[in-house]
Amino acid sequence: MEGIFGISSSQDCLENLFDGTFCLQHRGQEYCGLSTSDGKIVKIRTHRGLVGPSFTDDLPGLEGCWGIGVTSSQDRQPVSRHSKRGEFTIGMNGYLLNSSKLRTRLLKKGYSFATLEDVELVAGLIDQGRNITEGIKETLTRIQGPCNLVLLTKEGVYAARDVFGFRPLVLGRGEGKCAVASESCAFDINTKLERIRDVEPGEIVFLSREGALETTKLGNSKRKYCNCSFEWVYFARPDSIIEGIPVAKVRHNLGRFLAQNDNVEADVVGAVPFSGILHAEGYHLESHLPSVEVFLLPQYLKRTYIMPLRARKKEKEIKLRPLKENVAGKRIVLGDDSIRSGITMRGLVALLKGAGAKEVHVRIASPPSIRYCPHERPAEEEEEFIASKMSVEEISRFIEADSLVFQKLEDVPRAIGLPPENLCLDCFL
Amino acid sequence: MEGIFGISSSQDCLENLFDGTFCLQHRGQEYCGLSTSDGKIVKIRTHRGLVGPSFTDDLPGLEGCWGIGVTSSQDRQPVSRHSKRGEFTIGMNGYLLNSSKLRTRLLKKGYSFATLEDVELVAGLIDQGRNITEGIKETLTRIQGPCNLVLLTKEGVYAARDVFGFRPLVLGRGEGKCAVASESCAFDINTKLERIRDVEPGEIVFLSREGALETTKLGNSKRKYCNCSFEWVYFARPDSIIEGIPVAKVRHNLGRFLAQNDNVEADVVGAVPFSGILHAEGYHLESHLPSVEVFLLPQYLKRTYIMPLRARKKEKEIKLRPLKENVAGKRIVLGDDSIRSGITMRGLVALLKGAGAKEVHVRIASPPSIRYCPHERPAEEEEEFIASKMSVEEISRFIEADSLVFQKLEDVPRAIGLPPENLCLDCFL
Amino acid sequence: MEGIFGISSSQDCLENLFDGTFCLQHRGQEYCGLSTSDGKIVKIRTHRGLVGPSFTDDLPGLEGCWGIGVTSSQDRQPVSRHSKRGEFTIGMNGYLLNSSKLRTRLLKKGYSFATLEDVELVAGLIDQGRNITEGIKETLTRIQGPCNLVLLTKEGVYAARDVFGFRPLVLGRGEGKCAVASESCAFDINTKLERIRDVEPGEIVFLSREGALETTKLGNSKRKYCNCSFEWVYFARPDSIIEGIPVAKVRHNLGRFLAQNDNVEADVVGAVPFSGILHAEGYHLESHLPSVEVFLLPQYLKRTYIMPLRARKKEKEIKLRPLKENVAGKRIVLGDDSIRSGITMRGLVALLKGAGAKEVHVRIASPPSIRYCPHERPAEEEEEFIASKMSVEEISRFIEADSLVFQKLEDVPRAIGLPPENLCLDCFL
Amino acid sequence: MEGIFGISSSQDCLENLFDGTFCLQHRGQEYCGLSTSDGKIVKIRTHRGLVGPSFTDDLPGLEGCWGIGVTSSQDRQPVSRHSKRGEFTIGMNGYLLNSSKLRTRLLKKGYSFATLEDVELVAGLIDQGRNITEGIKETLTRIQGPCNLVLLTKEGVYAARDVFGFRPLVLGRGEGKCAVASESCAFDINTKLERIRDVEPGEIVFLSREGALETTKLGNSKRKYCNCSFEWVYFARPDSIIEGIPVAKVRHNLGRFLAQNDNVEADVVGAVPFSGILHAEGYHLESHLPSVEVFLLPQYLKRTYIMPLRARKKEKEIKLRPLKENVAGKRIVLGDDSIRSGITMRGLVALLKGAGAKEVHVRIASPPSIRYCPHERPAEEEEEFIASKMSVEEISRFIEADSLVFQKLEDVPRAIGLPPENLCLDCFL
Repeated sequence: MEGIFGISSSQDCLENLFDGTFCLQHRGQEYCGLSTSDGKIVKIRTHRGLVGPSFTDDLPGLEGCWGIGVTSSQDRQPVSRHSKRGEFTIGMNGYLLNSSKLRTRLLKKGYSFATLEDVELVAGLIDQGRNITEGIKETLTRIQGPCNLVLLTKEGVYAARDVFGFRPLVLGRGEGKCAVASESCAFDINTKLERIRDVEPGEIVFLSREGALETTKLGNSKRKYCNCSFEWVYFARPDSIIEGIPVAKVRHNLGRFLAQNDNVEADVVGAVPFSGILHAEGYHLESHLPSVEVFLLPQYLKRTYIMPLRARKKEKEIKLRPLKENVAGKRIVLGDDSIRSGITMRGLVALLKGAGAKEVHVRIASPPSIRYCPHERPAEEEEEFIASKMSVEEISRFIEADSLVFQKLEDVPRAIGLPPENLCLDCFL
Repeated sequence: MEGIFGISSSQDCLENLFDGTFCLQHRGQEYCGLSTSDGKIVKIRTHRGLVGPSFTDDLPGLEGCWGIGVTSSQDRQPVSRHSKRGEFTIGMNGYLLNSSKLRTRLLKKGYSFATLEDVELVAGLIDQGRNITEGIKETLTRIQGPCNLVLLTKEGVYAARDVFGFRPLVLGRGEGKCAVASESCAFDINTKLERIRDVEPGEIVFLSREGALETTKLGNSKRKYCNCSFEWVYFARPDSIIEGIPVAKVRHNLGRFLAQNDNVEADVVGAVPFSGILHAEGYHLESHLPSVEVFLLPQYLKRTYIMPLRARKKEKEIKLRPLKENVAGKRIVLGDDSIRSGITMRGLVALLKGAGAKEVHVRIASPPSIRYCPHERPAEEEEEFIASKMSVEEISRFIEADSLVFQKLEDVPRAIGLPPENLCLDCFL
Repeated sequence: MEGIFGISSSQDCLENLFDGTFCLQHRGQEYCGLSTSDGKIVKIRTHRGLVGPSFTDDLPGLEGCWGIGVTSSQDRQPVSRHSKRGEFTIGMNGYLLNSSKLRTRLLKKGYSFATLEDVELVAGLIDQGRNITEGIKETLTRIQGPCNLVLLTKEGVYAARDVFGFRPLVLGRGEGKCAVASESCAFDINTKLERIRDVEPGEIVFLSREGALETTKLGNSKRKYCNCSFEWVYFARPDSIIEGIPVAKVRHNLGRFLAQNDNVEADVVGAVPFSGILHAEGYHLESHLPSVEVFLLPQYLKRTYIMPLRARKKEKEIKLRPLKENVAGKRIVLGDDSIRSGITMRGLVALLKGAGAKEVHVRIASPPSIRYCPHERPAEEEEEFIASKMSVEEISRFIEADSLVFQKLEDVPRAIGLPPENLCLDCFL
Repeated sequence: MEGIFGISSSQDCLENLFDGTFCLQHRGQEYCGLSTSDGKIVKIRTHRGLVGPSFTDDLPGLEGCWGIGVTSSQDRQPVSRHSKRGEFTIGMNGYLLNSSKLRTRLLKKGYSFATLEDVELVAGLIDQGRNITEGIKETLTRIQGPCNLVLLTKEGVYAARDVFGFRPLVLGRGEGKCAVASESCAFDINTKLERIRDVEPGEIVFLSREGALETTKLGNSKRKYCNCSFEWVYFARPDSIIEGIPVAKVRHNLGRFLAQNDNVEADVVGAVPFSGILHAEGYHLESHLPSVEVFLLPQYLKRTYIMPLRARKKEKEIKLRPLKENVAGKRIVLGDDSIRSGITMRGLVALLKGAGAKEVHVRIASPPSIRYCPHERPAEEEEEFIASKMSVEEISRFIEADSLVFQKLEDVPRAIGLPPENLCLDCFL
């Protein structure tokens, strides 16, 4: 997963660029990079690690009036490209299903790559166009899969969203500047930007030097909303607004629906931090069950650098601690966003029981996930999806919960407020 | 402030020592150190920074059957001491009011120091005794101020608590091992230790090689509980138990009392993370007002290393973000533990108003703090205490809240469940 | 400047690859990189800094039976390439005069680049061939300027030398392995390789999996030796053998010729470390003047990491110190390889005079350099060449020497033992 | 071993302090530290590693008009001391034979230490005096073994040399400033200081705020020169002057005497870098045998940081390379300062033979060393001294030399020019 940010300003944009990219940290924690231009040259710096520590001492010299930034969980971005279209840098939030075919075609045409990353492939596809805009247009027509872009040239910043609009991309504006970001949370008190609207599927936006927005839309019949429903469920920051729909509101709805359909007798509702907090909150708001912290919020366990294996292991072991005062003797409704392998949830249920919980009723805000997202790059080591091989009842026994309820599939579109045909629900199907 | 930990085991204690010290991270984030022994030599390593990153790659070679660990916000600990009493290492949670006088006396006697830190002074005082135990005894008699110790020799680990018991110190036991810690949260699933009881004021405990506890108590008439009330209010981790009283329970009580005395009309109750969470929870449990996340929980902003000035500033600016979905149009009860300068709270109220809050009613779990803790080392740059120069009404106007209520002083002992004469309430008086 | 190394072995080559690349450290100190393959995948790691510190902790995981290594003073190498020719990594010692034209042609053909470095351009040119060998052939035909290559695929290692043979490239062999290196000093006691012969101008060599050498020569009429004479004078390590001619022998000859033509009355001969040592030695061997250390050999001043500006400045100031015992009251012949701006030499003469030298007679092993090497990438900040604007007599006065003699141009080919038409002497012309 | 430096100036001394300490790098490469004062406070910073990299980024904030600096191979220095004598920092070049007895006495008196290092013991001894000067006086009377000091207070810098003057200590002066250093090489073009004279055995010097020197001499009958002869042979930098005798001159003499007594037939004389260079030079100057570089001078192998074990091993293996041009077919006289285990020398002889040397005649500038210096702290892992168990002939066979000659014992005092009774020759006896 990646977070992408682009900004064009009548003044130096560097601090805004840092702040905006920083706000997208949750979308990718392994690599980060910034690229800027002042119309004469294109500058780029990438790091392994988080935005804050990486760039704290490495901003000087990157000044420029427009720029792009990326946070990424998998590859070093942005990347540079020198081609007959000139020089540009590009960052991408996406994953191409037909990359192999597209790359082969380009390779046959004599094109070549420094890496096998999708972002470089997309750069190559764009190169094929008459100009950047045409290149992006044709690229959007050919690719399969999520593909949101920010692209920087000596002229300004381009942004584009794939024709299905899988991943979010949103426009913002401030005084003398305009911007684009994976999520509206990047438009905040620090960047002094305000959300205007989402980029549409198949739309290409140019943030010009003057801070103006120019837009080109694909006339392509393919254009059709197919928003990833998991963005609302899990990926996005709770204060982001996607397609005009607040993430927090959707999470509340999902929790509320679970509560509406529930008749469990319980004393309190608690959440798995941080992913289940707003879902549990929705359950609480609907059920009027008291809402309490059943697991201690972890303050000193987040990593801000690349940890060696040993440390990761230690982190996993030590991460969550039950808060006995809120757990002992209680019948607990425990909310989370989803269950993958079930092993973590089994551990959490055991922690609560060990702390004296009388009952633990697990409520999952999404339907059973039966497979890894087909529109996201496969993880190096994939966990199995327990729901692909067990019934809900069997999962409940496996995690040793007193009861387990998943969201009904039809309630996901209802919670979001979009028609099912405009949502990607592939991980549940 | 400091966190101290000591353990003695029939086997290598290093992993437990790391885990236990790690659990006390919240008590000091600038320095950390571990010291161990196997009966032959005394080993010690100290670092600037957090326990996790500092020791992740630096544990090998520190193996031993007993050890002590410290987290500190001010000075490098533990320190070594070679004297006529032999060799020992020592860590301390405390602050001596009469250090100057005590040091002068020792200096006159020909004693000398490598630093001017209190912990080295205490080491010097202990040296004056006939043996370690006697030295600690006499030290506890002479010092003024909080002073909890862990001290390691080739024979085992000593622990002691000052005669007023200002700061918490608690004993734990596991299979073939016993331990002492500033807070019971260090006895957990990783250390496989269980809380036995608190060390008493003026008590000296020896954790022997065999994992046994031996205790000596000061016959001194001075012995008298005077527990820092702010440990329950703010310092301690919510899952710790101090003097047999769960921290979370006290925080709930404080929130509940505020709710009981309140007649404000409000829609939701929210907390300032992380300090106000359990107080707000108590208010919610009592008032039955819905409990919601009004500020986003910060996940990527915690530092795990020493940040340069610029980054600190950035961190402060960017830290908290309102969650509009839970804020806009709402009348909010906002809970926190205390108010110092009022500047942060004023910023938070403004953030909520900016996000559309209709009203913000600030409820503070403790009485107005009018001065920095006289029993804690003064900060390098002290903030002013707004309550020392303004009335509650004036503070309310300053922070631009719609209303502001502090805890009543008499409700603090009531929430804790101890007589006022056994509590230190000096910061409120 | 760069040093390149390639090896193919019947066993894991990693330690040999590290050692061989390490031996070429003097050819480039800013970046280094290693790439290996075992026939299945291609691995690559690059660092900023010296080979030793960079790879000390970063070798594990790079194992493979064949590999290439680069040390570079200017750009991060080797680079990866994925093209219709498959996947390869490539390192280059060279500088293309016609890069702009060649790049434009490739860009027009739709080719693109991640950087503007020559090595990536060459990779692109190679891609245009029917296969790697053909690609290299055509590349060698088209390029202007020095261009020695090592190129790694899943099949083995290719090496090639440009048609003029500007820069050295030499083949070595050991038990079950063969190798190629910029200089024969990489074949040593650690790599357990022995020098076979130089790669010829326009020759392409393939080091196969089995450790065998296969060679292809360009039928091109362009093939003609034009060895950089400065390799013998300065660039190469003294224990290297280029075109069968030992570097140390040439330096001796250059010193000897200076002595033969000299009638200065002097007491001792000394050198500017490290560049003038063997030249001064030759002068000593011919003149029988005593040879002494007039400047202290610097032991603790070499950098093994990227130093900030301040430190660089400090390093320059503090670097050389006269050894008074060998200087005071002496008439000194001071040998060095060349003079560029004259500022350093003026400083050195002043240091010797300050330490009591009676006379300082500067003897330069090469003719006056009047311009920066036209076959080497221009430095970011070029120094002026004093010989381009002053006569020898004027230079002598500028550096405040008692006398100054340069090598005669015709003696350079004589010292090397090659016909002038086979040597590049452009920097003197 | 350690290098110590002290300076007092009418202006900020920090740059001079850095430069002076930097020049003593050869005396200790594991730790370094600087301490300064401006009359109000005492500042101190210590690092693990070399002076250059350690302090390049860590000088700001250390400004002051007087200061001390230390380079050390064994312990972190300077150390701080707070005692009834006030506050001071201290650095020491030395090793106490009677430390155990002295420490016990202090411990009994109630004194205590943070470490068991000699420098802290000496600080403790000084504390016992009526004032700093008296304390140093009494300390010099009681200690056994080399002990040169620099000591900084809020009043200025003290320096002292033990009553035997084992290790060198020398005074320098510049405009408005005076200084003291282990070796005169620290007074150079950067520090702008000039050597005045050596501190005498038992002399205590005070460098006052005004840059003036005040001296106190021990009236003690013990005062007697007993200079370590190995300082001239090996430890000191070649451009230092000890007791008015240039180090380089002594090394020349030692080489000359070897040549005078030699009748070996040889073609060239070469040196083991760096330790044998000036000895071989002396041999060359006397014998008129041509002097050549038989081993390549290592330029990129010096460490400037703490290397992990693997790297150290690698460094040892790869360090020296024979220069075939000067070796093949030659009968070589190989000069070095001393032989310890003989293993290194055996390796070097083998390298030369492997490179084609016809004969290798080893000439050692000092007599056979039969034991580790009894006045220096024992190494953690001591090598055996081959001369303690083998005759010269046996050693010659062991190292596979064609001949081996050591210096005659009586020629060491003769080379230095001091009476034997004023020299420590214990390692040869």
